[in-house]
Amino acid sequence: MDDIRGSLRCPIARTLDVLGDRWTLLIVRDAIAGSTRFTEFRESLGMPRDVLADRLDTLVAGGVLERRTVSREGQRARDEYFVTDVGRELMVVLGALGDWGARNRPWDEPPLVTFTDAAGTPVAPRFVSGSREVPLDEVLVAAG
Amino acid sequence: MDDIRGSLRCPIARTLDVLGDRWTLLIVRDAIAGSTRFTEFRESLGMPRDVLADRLDTLVAGGVLERRTVSREGQRARDEYFVTDVGRELMVVLGALGDWGARNRPWDEPPLVTFTDAAGTPVAPRFVSGSREVPLDEVLVAAG
Repeated sequence: MDDIRGSLRCPIARTLDVLGDRWTLLIVRDAIAGSTRFTEFRESLGMPRDVLADRLDTLVAGGVLERRTVSREGQRARDEYFVTDVGRELMVVLGALGDWGARNRPWDEPPLVTFTDAAGTPVAPRFVSGSREVPLDEVLVAAG
Repeated sequence: MDDIRGSLRCPIARTLDVLGDRWTLLIVRDAIAGSTRFTEFRESLGMPRDVLADRLDTLVAGGVLERRTVSREGQRARDEYFVTDVGRELMVVLGALGDWGARNRPWDEPPLVTFTDAAGTPVAPRFVSGSREVPLDEVLVAAG
């Protein structure tokens, strides 16, 4: 990888090398919510077959999904896609995207995907330092 | 907006309508870190002028950035771009992306952008319920 204009020094940019388009993050959303089969992703997302195949390859290469050949009763063996531990950590990214969208791009139907604790209480990502929540207006962003 | 396959019911998908490509999130990163001028974004990101202009328009339309005409001493007036309060809330998304990338796509130089509390301690987003941090393996994702 060439470090053009410092972009590889930025972990955000390195992540977007794997995740940097709308489809990719929605595939991860579906995978975390339990989808494993090509046809499930395709029916949920309505994206072209070749684009879906390409994005799945990128996610497998990036260690977010694992491809396994699965034989199910009465069906021929086929490839399915399972979220890895590394991929599961992207729940925080998806939770942050969902929380922002719920507040800033509201919609009048219940959300398609929800994040809750074991008791069913909605949860959303917030900045923490140690175990203390840090209000957004106290978070400093430094570049350089 | 047509609700194709329930995608508008998903706040993640609605957010990605505004943010769904690599460039857009990196523009927001730079804006939150203090960039305001077209040339600053262009030099930082090295992206084509027409793509940058298009993404800035999308971010202004989505309420993430505000376009203002600024007159600086000895220069002709020009448009600059400022993060809105709504845009600033995307720090949580960027913080989650950066944290994932720092752990899962490591690099041997200091990060280009850092998130800290007022004391300089690094902060990263975690799921919280009330003010209690919820470990990732206790977060449930439900779809439907």
